[in-house]
Amino acid sequence: MNDENPINYLCEGVFLLKFLSFELAGKEQYGVLCNRGESVLNLYQLSQDEQYDKLPRQLIQGIQQGDAFVQLVDAILGKIENIDGKYLLPINEIKFLSPIPHPHKNIICVGKNYRDHAIEMGSAADIPENIIIFTKAPTTINAHLSDIDSHSELTSALDYEGELALVIGKKGKQIAKEEALHYVFGYTILNDITARDLQKKHKQFFIGKSLDTSCPIGPWIVHHNEISNPNELDIMTKVNGEIRQQSNTQHFIFSIEDIISELSKGMTLEPGDIIATGTPAGVGNGFKPPRFLKTGDRVEITVQSIGTLINVIK
Amino acid sequence: MNDENPINYLCEGVFLLKFLSFELAGKEQYGVLCNRGESVLNLYQLSQDEQYDKLPRQLIQGIQQGDAFVQLVDAILGKIENIDGKYLLPINEIKFLSPIPHPHKNIICVGKNYRDHAIEMGSAADIPENIIIFTKAPTTINAHLSDIDSHSELTSALDYEGELALVIGKKGKQIAKEEALHYVFGYTILNDITARDLQKKHKQFFIGKSLDTSCPIGPWIVHHNEISNPNELDIMTKVNGEIRQQSNTQHFIFSIEDIISELSKGMTLEPGDIIATGTPAGVGNGFKPPRFLKTGDRVEITVQSIGTLINVIK
Repeated sequence: MNDENPINYLCEGVFLLKFLSFELAGKEQYGVLCNRGESVLNLYQLSQDEQYDKLPRQLIQGIQQGDAFVQLVDAILGKIENIDGKYLLPINEIKFLSPIPHPHKNIICVGKNYRDHAIEMGSAADIPENIIIFTKAPTTINAHLSDIDSHSELTSALDYEGELALVIGKKGKQIAKEEALHYVFGYTILNDITARDLQKKHKQFFIGKSLDTSCPIGPWIVHHNEISNPNELDIMTKVNGEIRQQSNTQHFIFSIEDIISELSKGMTLEPGDIIATGTPAGVGNGFKPPRFLKTGDRVEITVQSIGTLINVIK
Repeated sequence: MNDENPINYLCEGVFLLKFLSFELAGKEQYGVLCNRGESVLNLYQLSQDEQYDKLPRQLIQGIQQGDAFVQLVDAILGKIENIDGKYLLPINEIKFLSPIPHPHKNIICVGKNYRDHAIEMGSAADIPENIIIFTKAPTTINAHLSDIDSHSELTSALDYEGELALVIGKKGKQIAKEEALHYVFGYTILNDITARDLQKKHKQFFIGKSLDTSCPIGPWIVHHNEISNPNELDIMTKVNGEIRQQSNTQHFIFSIEDIISELSKGMTLEPGDIIATGTPAGVGNGFKPPRFLKTGDRVEITVQSIGTLINVIK
């Protein structure tokens, strides 16, 4: 796994579709990486040029438009030499937002989806036979390079959970496993920050999983075309440079296809839905004694073919 | 508890603020009850009259505006003789929507908030010491007088849960119990339809609680001014006319103030958040043998000072 600066190694070519949202001039804007990841093409600004007025104003609208949006962006990138340089921003100068800054529902999360994590949280008896799903409130949303609140007045057991997340691109119900990947817009990285003491105290996970700022997502959404098999991606979490979690999504108990199929049996999935796929072993709670997060800790989660999500505990 | 037609007994006066959303001419609209509950003043249509252009286009926007919105509606109702009759609709002719047809996050639900229900779901050991919170997806939203899908291909244990629900009116965090009721916009009725088999099978409640159409809400939101003490309201659920649940919110384990205070300790509450307060004993699962819902069953939930929410299983 590449361990360098997440910016420089990610964009080997020009046309890897990595979509991101950011704040500029106090406004929520969005764009796509270009120039080997060194620049962001500002699609929000471009949408106000009449030549490009088919571009939506927000990334979530693009996701809802689906293939038409992706083809349009692809076509624009194919003729990027025609684009005025004023629409290009150096990646190092933007303030990242979560790719979907205001999700329209809670983040959907799979619990205990790696055997070794289920065991470290209890015992082999905790390996689920059936998928476990809980949610995080939209108020937990946080961005790449933004701080995570320690909530030290509420918890003394704040923990990280590095996860691959997917973003649904198409409305669907009763989706067959064989069709499931066609419903994915793209993939991103998610840190399912958890207050272990609250998670245990309140039995259902929601409270311990829904502290404000406890869901960093990003830095971007990689379009599904760029990832041939999401069930075979390296995933690694470091805290202050030390590797804590290192696994591969091939160790999922429930594959991406299983997750989409199970969820959609009785519940309609919608474009923009964010689904976190679970975390491997190595969370702070799994150490003896536990190694929970404290102010100043830097958490870096790297997922192969996506990048690295970095946050510091405030 | 009044057991008559929910429409006729609810509006004793003209100025009881009961807000509702409905569909008219294929559009989502909203209004306020008037004329002793026999009519709806169409605030959506009125908002397009320049004299009333401070009215928002959706009820959720009014809730976000808070007191200013309520005072404006109150003032309009105070001079209702000035309103053109074309803005009044007979209550019996509208197609109800959920008061908030598109919640901006999952519905927040309190689990096991009445001792007798906790016991019927297991034993006295199930009475929670700490509040239990889970969520229902926004895709579960359903309306007064609309059908509930039986999901007979997925569950053979569909159950009702009659509940008082509240709608948050003001953004807040770390809300003190003494201040909590000031954060409530109003109260409504919610049927937390649950697939008991899925609830058990998947451990965390989300899947069993999130089948499409499994969250009827309504018929309207009663403004908080109309309810002096939400912790002392009769609540009753009938199935096909037979009383199944009959209690009073004075039996809450966690009062409305407790719920708001607990939730907001680490999570920001936002206007439009819907919080279901839990169900009393008498759910189908509590009978021996269980009495689950089947196609054609009619569920009626009545909460004192609010009204009756009626749905049929399809």
